[in-house]
Amino acid sequence: MSRVRVAGVGLTEFGRAPERTGRELFAEASARALDDAGVDREAVSALHYGNFMGALGERQGHQAPLMAEAAGLRCPATRYELACASAGAAVRGAVQSVRGGEADVVVAGGMERMTNRTIEETTEALAIAADELFEVRAGVTFPGAYALMARSYFERFGGGPADLAHVAVKNHANAVPNEYAQYREEIAVDDALDAPTIADPLGLYDSCPVTDGASAVVLVSESYAEENDVDASVAVVGSGQGGDRLALQDRASPARTPATDDAAAEAFADAGCSREDVCAVEVHDCFTIAEVCALEGLGFYDPGEGIGAARRGETTADGGLPVNLSGGLKAKGHPVGATGGSQVAEMTRLLRGDHPNSDAVDGTVGLTHNAGGTVASAVVHLLEVVE
Amino acid sequence: MSRVRVAGVGLTEFGRAPERTGRELFAEASARALDDAGVDREAVSALHYGNFMGALGERQGHQAPLMAEAAGLRCPATRYELACASAGAAVRGAVQSVRGGEADVVVAGGMERMTNRTIEETTEALAIAADELFEVRAGVTFPGAYALMARSYFERFGGGPADLAHVAVKNHANAVPNEYAQYREEIAVDDALDAPTIADPLGLYDSCPVTDGASAVVLVSESYAEENDVDASVAVVGSGQGGDRLALQDRASPARTPATDDAAAEAFADAGCSREDVCAVEVHDCFTIAEVCALEGLGFYDPGEGIGAARRGETTADGGLPVNLSGGLKAKGHPVGATGGSQVAEMTRLLRGDHPNSDAVDGTVGLTHNAGGTVASAVVHLLEVVE
Repeated sequence: MSRVRVAGVGLTEFGRAPERTGRELFAEASARALDDAGVDREAVSALHYGNFMGALGERQGHQAPLMAEAAGLRCPATRYELACASAGAAVRGAVQSVRGGEADVVVAGGMERMTNRTIEETTEALAIAADELFEVRAGVTFPGAYALMARSYFERFGGGPADLAHVAVKNHANAVPNEYAQYREEIAVDDALDAPTIADPLGLYDSCPVTDGASAVVLVSESYAEENDVDASVAVVGSGQGGDRLALQDRASPARTPATDDAAAEAFADAGCSREDVCAVEVHDCFTIAEVCALEGLGFYDPGEGIGAARRGETTADGGLPVNLSGGLKAKGHPVGATGGSQVAEMTRLLRGDHPNSDAVDGTVGLTHNAGGTVASAVVHLLEVVE
Repeated sequence: MSRVRVAGVGLTEFGRAPERTGRELFAEASARALDDAGVDREAVSALHYGNFMGALGERQGHQAPLMAEAAGLRCPATRYELACASAGAAVRGAVQSVRGGEADVVVAGGMERMTNRTIEETTEALAIAADELFEVRAGVTFPGAYALMARSYFERFGGGPADLAHVAVKNHANAVPNEYAQYREEIAVDDALDAPTIADPLGLYDSCPVTDGASAVVLVSESYAEENDVDASVAVVGSGQGGDRLALQDRASPARTPATDDAAAEAFADAGCSREDVCAVEVHDCFTIAEVCALEGLGFYDPGEGIGAARRGETTADGGLPVNLSGGLKAKGHPVGATGGSQVAEMTRLLRGDHPNSDAVDGTVGLTHNAGGTVASAVVHLLEVVE
């Protein structure tokens, strides 16, 4: 099986850009990734593209060939949609196509526009990631669903808003030096605790923002990298995906996310490495409680133990397992269809040593975790410096 | 590389079913496919699912995990969206995952609901497969776009509505015995020529209907089939995909569809067989002119020669190259996100000998061709009886 290298990564500055079209955003991210890779556009044989809500927000379906054109590519293009894990799924599809020998050079990534409509319209559009018949019609929105998960977690395992505040403080601190982050200001624990409630027990700083942005990574086979002298020191060594019931009510416990467990198990088995090898993690912290559930699902903490990780300083930049050194969805921003590609791009920069927070990375293996909905879908990748 | 076998296929009866939910439709198709395969649900390790416009028509995104649940599967699920080629892309993703060694048993397919809204709403929803900025805002709908392609074809190569009428007559005749087809009535050439104009030069019988339906196929690795004594006599021996500019105006000629050329070239090279080996073809005839362009793009006819194929009787059930023995999108129906899976299911039945039109098949290799938009995307698969 051909191993897969990350030859280049590209991102737009995450934030509010309601005046920019989707094709502009993806053109920018893909151009940066292709420049970073030093690979000719003619060598690219497929685009694997993630987008979640373009049919609603932009009235634009069939975005894959449009984005190939925006990227200056002449190749087949496929869109993956898995709610907020759309780009994670796109990266996984790209990895599988290179491994299967279908392609030597592919681009994967995603794009989302979220600020071109009112926040009410965007909240309603995001809600289509939940079960329309059995959740949305009952009034579920995502802040509400994650509030329910937080409440269930607190009741089952303990912990409270002050623990979650430390997650927000950590991720805001990490975002400060990141030139691609939406919110580059530190906050204090009291800022988080005193902030307006969004959905009890979650407050403003427990929630990621809405964001416009795009991400792209150039993946190449190991043989192509060698034969063409492509500088690609980071490899995708493991890929895993998990799935669960769509509706929260159909699961055993809202405080646990087994799709993450399954994705991690597959990725670690695929890579042949263990959790002790991992030196940096980017997890899907759309809400602070989601980071806690992710760290437990990934197996870095036992159930009930993840809630105190940030408060104890274990997941801060100077802790034993730095989590969301990019700033995470929380502070870097969350253009939903782009996020999975952004995580792989940021982890590649962190491992290569050219991320402003690379100094916090002590090791060669990093993990990315991208989730859809209330974690009905999860995609995990393991990256490693291999030369 | 592990070869891929079709272990089972399942379809819903195509037609109007506005009262049935998407999950009901996909549950039925997938249950039939799994029954046909005789494979336990526990053995399935992924669902690859196509859907185009559920975000608009049903306000339901993130359908992949929902459909896995409806199918009784406990596995990761991914949605592919490539306009009307969504399920073709899903089958291709599934094939690649088995070839790459990621999985031994997967389900691929798709679903679309189209009659639960007014025809105006459905026409508008379909239009998001075109370029929103440069086509849709100028008033383009798909009947209009394909009418433009037909007019361009006639001007460049000759031919006219009477040639297209023979395509409709053929596909309606093929649908008569097909228990899954939406329109099982024969029509005459004059019926087509006398029908109301939809978008000049295309009339009512040049256009496929709107359809509710679902499709599913169970794909297994050759080693799994052998070890588990799975009856799977048909293999997917070739897969190819092509891409083009999204907007018709950005292409060299509206009368040619080079994405189909590229997809076919890749699929034939992949399979190591030639056009002379092919004994039956299912092409994407969303409009009659689309069948003509497809046959030329696939290389069965030179440009300008495909227009007379049906009239000359070459592509009828008793012709040298039977095309759309299922009835095609034209008469079998076109639930857009399901169509690519339906084509693979129908071709498998045709090759296995258990389709009502199997008698028209004289050989062992069949081809399926699924297109998105005005063929900005095309996916081709080659199937072969291998035992």
